[in-house]
Amino acid sequence: MEKFVSYNPVRIEFGRGACERVGELARQYADHVLLHYGGGSIHASGTYARVTKALRAAGVDYTELGGVRPNPRLSLVREGIDICRRKRIDFILAVGGGSVIDSAKAIAAGTCYEGDVWDFYEGRALPEKALKLGVVLTIPAAGSESSDGTVLTKEEGMLKRSFCSPLCYPQFSILDPDLCRSLPAHQIAAGGADILAHVMERYFSPTTGNELSDQLCEGTMRTLMKELPKVLADQDDTAAWEQVMWTGNVAHNGLLGRGNEEDWASHEIEHELSALYDIAHGAGLAIVFPAWMKYVWREHPGKFMRYAENVLGVTGDDAETMVMQAIAKTEDFFRSIGLAVRLSELKIDDGRFSEMAEKACKGGELGAFRKLVPGDVEEILRLAL
Amino acid sequence: MEKFVSYNPVRIEFGRGACERVGELARQYADHVLLHYGGGSIHASGTYARVTKALRAAGVDYTELGGVRPNPRLSLVREGIDICRRKRIDFILAVGGGSVIDSAKAIAAGTCYEGDVWDFYEGRALPEKALKLGVVLTIPAAGSESSDGTVLTKEEGMLKRSFCSPLCYPQFSILDPDLCRSLPAHQIAAGGADILAHVMERYFSPTTGNELSDQLCEGTMRTLMKELPKVLADQDDTAAWEQVMWTGNVAHNGLLGRGNEEDWASHEIEHELSALYDIAHGAGLAIVFPAWMKYVWREHPGKFMRYAENVLGVTGDDAETMVMQAIAKTEDFFRSIGLAVRLSELKIDDGRFSEMAEKACKGGELGAFRKLVPGDVEEILRLAL
Repeated sequence: MEKFVSYNPVRIEFGRGACERVGELARQYADHVLLHYGGGSIHASGTYARVTKALRAAGVDYTELGGVRPNPRLSLVREGIDICRRKRIDFILAVGGGSVIDSAKAIAAGTCYEGDVWDFYEGRALPEKALKLGVVLTIPAAGSESSDGTVLTKEEGMLKRSFCSPLCYPQFSILDPDLCRSLPAHQIAAGGADILAHVMERYFSPTTGNELSDQLCEGTMRTLMKELPKVLADQDDTAAWEQVMWTGNVAHNGLLGRGNEEDWASHEIEHELSALYDIAHGAGLAIVFPAWMKYVWREHPGKFMRYAENVLGVTGDDAETMVMQAIAKTEDFFRSIGLAVRLSELKIDDGRFSEMAEKACKGGELGAFRKLVPGDVEEILRLAL
Repeated sequence: MEKFVSYNPVRIEFGRGACERVGELARQYADHVLLHYGGGSIHASGTYARVTKALRAAGVDYTELGGVRPNPRLSLVREGIDICRRKRIDFILAVGGGSVIDSAKAIAAGTCYEGDVWDFYEGRALPEKALKLGVVLTIPAAGSESSDGTVLTKEEGMLKRSFCSPLCYPQFSILDPDLCRSLPAHQIAAGGADILAHVMERYFSPTTGNELSDQLCEGTMRTLMKELPKVLADQDDTAAWEQVMWTGNVAHNGLLGRGNEEDWASHEIEHELSALYDIAHGAGLAIVFPAWMKYVWREHPGKFMRYAENVLGVTGDDAETMVMQAIAKTEDFFRSIGLAVRLSELKIDDGRFSEMAEKACKGGELGAFRKLVPGDVEEILRLAL
């Protein structure tokens, strides 16, 4: 087991009707907030109406900045920073999924920084101060509502980068399962793949003997695989939505990887993919992760045999047979929720593999389960074709 | 699934050598602390020397108050409050297990309160302000290093009561597995029973369909049952100590019961037992919990069948047979780690059952899995004879 520091101060307000608490919660921090959101979906779903009604009832004024798109962009962040500075706003309310939350975190840190907010994403600076933020979550996926991380894309060069800081923890995150009902099926599925991937990045670790983390990860993966198909079959299944929403949070609030050296190579590789081809991050992970598994499993076969048996019910004596079955079952799960598991299904060819591999490894070797250099990343992308 | 608020801001510093960080961590809060601990064991184990050396190195002065005993007493808390007021101390460093931490929480809240600190334990007042505290954990058991609760015993009438407040969360808790090596076997075993009971109180809930919590609880129970015997067999098994220590924390940091209506009847019953007979809390739980199981299982047999199968590997078709086997296996586990599972083994007879039952139910019905009145509590105690 590795040494670690465990700290996560986010206050989660969970359950049906929690959305109505947004006014009183925001009011504890500000009387004027930046209301940050994505496209038109929160209008169509009624979430916008519920949130703004609660804010008005609590006497909280708001300036709106919508338009966050999947793989959120630096240009909109700059706009948000400008608004917060001009209007002296000091609290951001993100209403949406991971993209909106990550964009809000960027605005929060950028507003208090004299330099260029992109510095944080390039590792040239760390935020020393940030605006506080709150979240109303509408998509269980990224776990950003409970994490200290943010991922952003710079249009120039299509660079997708991330940074972590304790200042990125939201003050509160509202998880109201009723807000998820009207999500498009593809978004639910991609979100589910992202949740599963967050557990896998922590589970497939070179650290051995961390029984508790193994058990917690396995239980979380089994739960996701059981509950996600239920919401896809019936988007009004509140009980299943509760499970998916809470699972998405637990998967990425930090707990599941405590004491493990975590991997995160698949996430890095996927970031290059979605930066270039603008696919949903979770959809990209459903393609990258099985390919990564095929490439790395021999490094620590015992971990993959454990995954096979405890998560997917694959038994046997021969490691290779078991692991291949487990990877096939993983792909089957992604296919069953409607996701592609090969780049070719998305009409992506090998034309930019070497460019992606080089960009992914710009900061050095990737991963921990097996350390990867650009040649390895190219091989993994080739296995994903 | 029930609505919930999830919030736990404790910073955990985990791993071998973490103890040496106590000076720099305490220094962030104060230059003079109340160093609160129990009997002579932290001297014998070397923990006292390590902690005080680190404090001195960081320039942190300390006033000592030792002498906390298991089932910590109100009289020592009053002494601590007096010291903190006289010396204008505003940070408490608890070095010990649950009793020391709970005593420290009482001093922290009592110092800032004009009335009598026992008011909090009787529910007559809630703390509005408290000194901050830090923890160096030496016994994995109570989970108090990560909880908002404190349990205290008032000598007059031998009343054992508890209260919870966000002000009771430690600022930091240091979990260094090396500090556990020299614990007496009985204390390790009682601590393990306490850890297991913390999971069971959350797991045996009338709430249904909370798959994630079920899975997380089951994984945590399996881990404890696997790892605890290892440290009893070899107290130098660092890898197993890490698991036990982290499991004790996860069991009681709040996560495992999110979305469940939790029970806690066995804890309430045990508090009366250890108040009157001064046995270790965990040792009392190893007796009370199996008896509680026998009395309540028919209320929600499905939950007990799930426990039988997923935690203890008991399979079958007949509910009663499975559940009885599971309870017997639970008792076997407690016996295997050296704990008694019957009151008679501790020479406790039924002489004060009705007194304990009345005191336990003073605040109303107990529990949630099945609501208990004094007559039920007496029956449970009788099953424990």
